[in-house]
Amino acid sequence: MNQHQEKYKSIRSHSEAICKPLQIEDYVAQPVEDVSPPKWHLAHTSWFFETFLLKPYVKAYPEFDPQYPYLFNSYYVAAGERMLRPNRGNMTRPTVEDIYKFRAHVDKHMLAFLSGDLTNEQQEILEIGFNHEQQHQELLFYDIKYILGHNPLFPVYKIDFEEYKIENEASGFVEVPKGNYTIGHNGEGFSFDNEHGRHEVHLEGAAINKQLVTNGEYLEFIEANGYENHEFWHSDARAWLDESGIDRPLYWHKQEGKWYYYTFQGLKPIDEKASLMHISFYEAFAFAQWKGMRLPTEFEWETAADQLNWGKRWEHTGSAYLPYPRYKKPEGAIGEYNGKFMVNQMVLRGASIGTPSNHSRKTYRNFFHPHLQWQFNGIRLAKDL
Amino acid sequence: MNQHQEKYKSIRSHSEAICKPLQIEDYVAQPVEDVSPPKWHLAHTSWFFETFLLKPYVKAYPEFDPQYPYLFNSYYVAAGERMLRPNRGNMTRPTVEDIYKFRAHVDKHMLAFLSGDLTNEQQEILEIGFNHEQQHQELLFYDIKYILGHNPLFPVYKIDFEEYKIENEASGFVEVPKGNYTIGHNGEGFSFDNEHGRHEVHLEGAAINKQLVTNGEYLEFIEANGYENHEFWHSDARAWLDESGIDRPLYWHKQEGKWYYYTFQGLKPIDEKASLMHISFYEAFAFAQWKGMRLPTEFEWETAADQLNWGKRWEHTGSAYLPYPRYKKPEGAIGEYNGKFMVNQMVLRGASIGTPSNHSRKTYRNFFHPHLQWQFNGIRLAKDL
Amino acid sequence: MNQHQEKYKSIRSHSEAICKPLQIEDYVAQPVEDVSPPKWHLAHTSWFFETFLLKPYVKAYPEFDPQYPYLFNSYYVAAGERMLRPNRGNMTRPTVEDIYKFRAHVDKHMLAFLSGDLTNEQQEILEIGFNHEQQHQELLFYDIKYILGHNPLFPVYKIDFEEYKIENEASGFVEVPKGNYTIGHNGEGFSFDNEHGRHEVHLEGAAINKQLVTNGEYLEFIEANGYENHEFWHSDARAWLDESGIDRPLYWHKQEGKWYYYTFQGLKPIDEKASLMHISFYEAFAFAQWKGMRLPTEFEWETAADQLNWGKRWEHTGSAYLPYPRYKKPEGAIGEYNGKFMVNQMVLRGASIGTPSNHSRKTYRNFFHPHLQWQFNGIRLAKDL
Amino acid sequence: MNQHQEKYKSIRSHSEAICKPLQIEDYVAQPVEDVSPPKWHLAHTSWFFETFLLKPYVKAYPEFDPQYPYLFNSYYVAAGERMLRPNRGNMTRPTVEDIYKFRAHVDKHMLAFLSGDLTNEQQEILEIGFNHEQQHQELLFYDIKYILGHNPLFPVYKIDFEEYKIENEASGFVEVPKGNYTIGHNGEGFSFDNEHGRHEVHLEGAAINKQLVTNGEYLEFIEANGYENHEFWHSDARAWLDESGIDRPLYWHKQEGKWYYYTFQGLKPIDEKASLMHISFYEAFAFAQWKGMRLPTEFEWETAADQLNWGKRWEHTGSAYLPYPRYKKPEGAIGEYNGKFMVNQMVLRGASIGTPSNHSRKTYRNFFHPHLQWQFNGIRLAKDL
Repeated sequence: MNQHQEKYKSIRSHSEAICKPLQIEDYVAQPVEDVSPPKWHLAHTSWFFETFLLKPYVKAYPEFDPQYPYLFNSYYVAAGERMLRPNRGNMTRPTVEDIYKFRAHVDKHMLAFLSGDLTNEQQEILEIGFNHEQQHQELLFYDIKYILGHNPLFPVYKIDFEEYKIENEASGFVEVPKGNYTIGHNGEGFSFDNEHGRHEVHLEGAAINKQLVTNGEYLEFIEANGYENHEFWHSDARAWLDESGIDRPLYWHKQEGKWYYYTFQGLKPIDEKASLMHISFYEAFAFAQWKGMRLPTEFEWETAADQLNWGKRWEHTGSAYLPYPRYKKPEGAIGEYNGKFMVNQMVLRGASIGTPSNHSRKTYRNFFHPHLQWQFNGIRLAKDL
Repeated sequence: MNQHQEKYKSIRSHSEAICKPLQIEDYVAQPVEDVSPPKWHLAHTSWFFETFLLKPYVKAYPEFDPQYPYLFNSYYVAAGERMLRPNRGNMTRPTVEDIYKFRAHVDKHMLAFLSGDLTNEQQEILEIGFNHEQQHQELLFYDIKYILGHNPLFPVYKIDFEEYKIENEASGFVEVPKGNYTIGHNGEGFSFDNEHGRHEVHLEGAAINKQLVTNGEYLEFIEANGYENHEFWHSDARAWLDESGIDRPLYWHKQEGKWYYYTFQGLKPIDEKASLMHISFYEAFAFAQWKGMRLPTEFEWETAADQLNWGKRWEHTGSAYLPYPRYKKPEGAIGEYNGKFMVNQMVLRGASIGTPSNHSRKTYRNFFHPHLQWQFNGIRLAKDL
Repeated sequence: MNQHQEKYKSIRSHSEAICKPLQIEDYVAQPVEDVSPPKWHLAHTSWFFETFLLKPYVKAYPEFDPQYPYLFNSYYVAAGERMLRPNRGNMTRPTVEDIYKFRAHVDKHMLAFLSGDLTNEQQEILEIGFNHEQQHQELLFYDIKYILGHNPLFPVYKIDFEEYKIENEASGFVEVPKGNYTIGHNGEGFSFDNEHGRHEVHLEGAAINKQLVTNGEYLEFIEANGYENHEFWHSDARAWLDESGIDRPLYWHKQEGKWYYYTFQGLKPIDEKASLMHISFYEAFAFAQWKGMRLPTEFEWETAADQLNWGKRWEHTGSAYLPYPRYKKPEGAIGEYNGKFMVNQMVLRGASIGTPSNHSRKTYRNFFHPHLQWQFNGIRLAKDL
Repeated sequence: MNQHQEKYKSIRSHSEAICKPLQIEDYVAQPVEDVSPPKWHLAHTSWFFETFLLKPYVKAYPEFDPQYPYLFNSYYVAAGERMLRPNRGNMTRPTVEDIYKFRAHVDKHMLAFLSGDLTNEQQEILEIGFNHEQQHQELLFYDIKYILGHNPLFPVYKIDFEEYKIENEASGFVEVPKGNYTIGHNGEGFSFDNEHGRHEVHLEGAAINKQLVTNGEYLEFIEANGYENHEFWHSDARAWLDESGIDRPLYWHKQEGKWYYYTFQGLKPIDEKASLMHISFYEAFAFAQWKGMRLPTEFEWETAADQLNWGKRWEHTGSAYLPYPRYKKPEGAIGEYNGKFMVNQMVLRGASIGTPSNHSRKTYRNFFHPHLQWQFNGIRLAKDL
């Protein structure tokens, strides 16, 4: 096996390993629009390799099923008609077994394809395919947690999957002095288009906390009526709170005066010393206001990253998701990967307990709408120098 | 085995037979609120026996799972807290296997319970349990068809399940002359509370068609722009058409100028001679207006029933679902069975290809909101004498 | 002045008298879709005479403004394009002054037209125009009360308009013995198409209360947690309560433990002895259930009417609004008057303090969707004999 | 009269001058939530002076009406309970006349108050009150145009109010070379908190068009199917187009193949040479994509501003509305002025034909949600150096 084949196998099998603990039924549900059924992720990532490598470059490739592109395209308008996202959970067919067969079919042909030499362009698409599947691995964790965590039976996903391990992090702050800094990917190894365009920024100076906010600190915020006190919140955030009735992180429950959260290990008492997870940007911002501090910008974060112990929580920043200078969308369907989302979303930096190994770097820009809570995110506070 | 046991086994096994052709995935989805996941039906009908017979009357009955009542109660407010209906499709656990175990557990204890003598009250509840499960058998067909029929792959449910067999019915009309008639159940055999209160009505006279409306006749209505012509439609119906964009029966598709419908046998060309199915009350009413005729009232239908060949389609009537004179809701949770739905719904009479044998009689009152299309319904026209 | 002219003047001036106490601003608002701006009513009733009499029958009639038909048609699809109902409140032009000019223009030409002989058909349309305007006079009261009653300043409409005068009604019941009765209008004087088709019905016997339900009785229901107790309510009603948060009649307020209601005389303490007003069918039904009684059917009501002192409250009945036997919609736009509403609505019988004199009769069928509260309605209870 | 008094009178009378051409009815409507009734603006700006100057600092000030604060507070949560925004259009009282009396009352007391010496704090609040009223003057124009422009009669606001005067602007580009620049207000004269925090930014270099995009250029975009071609649009923008059905700037109409727009002078043929107005950020962005260019950032714009002829259109930028470094919300209710909107909105720079004189400066940051079209906005294109 050559390197491409090995990497392919390793990444592809990780997706299936994530789904291993599931029952067939768990693969099907889409409880809210943002959460896709696990079987959809498994099929969609295969569709990616079939559509962007096998069909264009392997002459005799026998398409697995001509209806699958319609079912498993996500948002690549340029790649053809696609099923509307909210209907994913209604598609009981193809079955999970069918989809594993689809994966096996794609894998067989991909491994054959990878046995030969690849052009530069093919290598680039392959790398995107790898990273694309890794992104869906992270989403698989989010979505599986959402599906199981909203079941009244609170089923265990994996008894040894610990999300709230306590990190003994040094206290104090990392300083980023006033000055010009270079931001963006340096070109070594893979990166997404949204990290490109290495450029200079001027920063006014910041101090960034070495520790993440803990559950205990956030509990104080709740108990200090942080959710009710309008002054900490954006106007849009208040509308969101009013409409949703949200007054706590996702998966938190209060039973007979005690706080619990749903974890992959089932329902557990909240560990006050562990790092907080599952709060939206709105909540992260309000919490920082209450503390008299703020969120770091994505540029401050990237500048300080080498001195921070990051990687367990995607960390909210105060930066809107916008293109870097000279940003150009790639041509074709791949061009839809990032650029079309560059409005109304906020940047998160770092990585999480759900991030596949080798899929994080300090220039990585993750992004979500500001009300979403189901990612494995957290808060790191900053202040002006 | 005594009679109760035999009937119990026969009815319970029919529910499972209906689900036999399904894949596990098909048991899970709830594509719209009115459609429940098949596994929910299987569990809910078992919950009924457990709640209303085993728990009250079998001392040592070991409850299968104390969380199931919360999950599988439907609308019996008096029987305790229940999960909200729109969330049924998100509940991937308990698994299908768990639910079959639940059924087996209930069945074992029920068969033991039925081996002894039953009080009158117990017999009455048992009869309701039987009829309740039979009603869900009919709903199972509707819901399975909806789940499979909205899948872009149009999977076959059962290749020999023919919904559109052609009936060679004599033409002409059955006359119901002006006069007083007795309506309602005569007390022999089982009946629901909504059929009770045998009473007199006065009818002004009607002629009722011996034949049901065919697909071909309805196609004429479509092609005569029946859906666009406002004068045939209720005001609420027009709002429904505008909002939903509906312009044909459920499951009808037009591909390259030809009409098809999804059936349990897969997608098939429409058979113009077969009886129409899957039109709402609004559409049935508009079609009748276009024909210069009308729908029969439920009283006319019941009076003519012995002279009609009914049983393949639930037939729309022009009657609102209201209580009969002297109607009294039964006490307790069972009292919620029918009475609380007696507003905003229209009566259908007859039975359908999905109705279990022995679960139809001429006094049976079925009822649905006027916009629903997913039942196995049809149109029989009437006119004044 | 001939009789037609006199009646025309009298009815037309009554509409304007109703609006006399308004400020210009009050003519404009449409706080919810069901409530039309008063200026719209004034214009729409004029549009009716212009469209159905002046334009077809008066050769040289100079149309007031060719854009008005678009603006002031309500639901007569056959009479041409029309503005969507929810936008009425956004139309600040034509101004109130313009609309009074429109009325004067139509009045001038109508009085000229009425000076001559009318054909039978013209007389019929004229009568419908009279009754149509009278119906809008009643609606004007409802809508004006809604607009002023939802203003935080609770402005007085007319200080001597008493809605809650106490009637000293004899106690006891009127009996309607089991038997056949004739229902519907007898043809003397004006009637709407929905009253036609005089026909026989069979009634099983009822006793109907001589007194209307009072505010005090309804307060008992509220205080007995009638709104929370699911057993009194229809399933659709509970959904309505949950969604709207309604837990009292419209216009009722509780301030520092005391109950008040908004009336045309401003905010006043609730008079417990006065007849209840502003409850939906759902509430009327639930109240009757709580009392162990029921609402009369519209047929029982009509049969007993001569022995009842009715006319202050439209009275909820247990009858769905359906066509009488042999009902035929009139031809043309006038045909849209009643028939298209014969689904999803319940019948009210009687008349109210807002009903113009000479616009009530015992065969009159009023109808509304079951959740609406803004009419001047009330409850009269019945029970089986 | 001292300077404060003169300025006060001049600004206050300008608001009333803007409303002069209105009919009373026009003051009342709120056709969509973002558009407030003109009478509300007139009252709210008076409420500001009453609440933040007269009540705290004028001992014997007789409050005009104790219910007005509830009615005319907008979003200042700290200043007390307030009526929900969507209900403003339903409030027919207080009347327009009442509100002019309220203005006169406030003016009388303000002029007396201003006759004396003011503390620094009072002067600051006064300045905010002036600028606040000027902002509402601009909004008054937007809202009046929306109310009149959505009336089917297309009424003229003011026959000599020309929005589409042609500017003969030199062609070509202003260059902003790569480098560090200082951004933010320099402290001379009034500015809002969101302009404070003068700070350095690094720019990579840009060329900014001296001319605004014209109607003619935008027509080309429409005719090149720019609205249909997904590749120019953000993902959120496509959802917005799909839901709203928007396919043109606000106020544009196509009649018999020719393009018109509603203007304050009534409906007019579109002048292709005049500067485009009434496109959302989404549309501005898509247009720029189609042109192969981009929107300038707010920092590029501010840097180039002295070399641009701006002031007729608020100009869309590619910058999200975020706090400047070291941004601190002012204490108390005034602190809610800007900070709570710093999410989900995009920055516009410049000024418009509706901007009061002396209410624009190059550091001014205007901001709106990216789908809004009703401002007097336009497009200026930029490209990388």
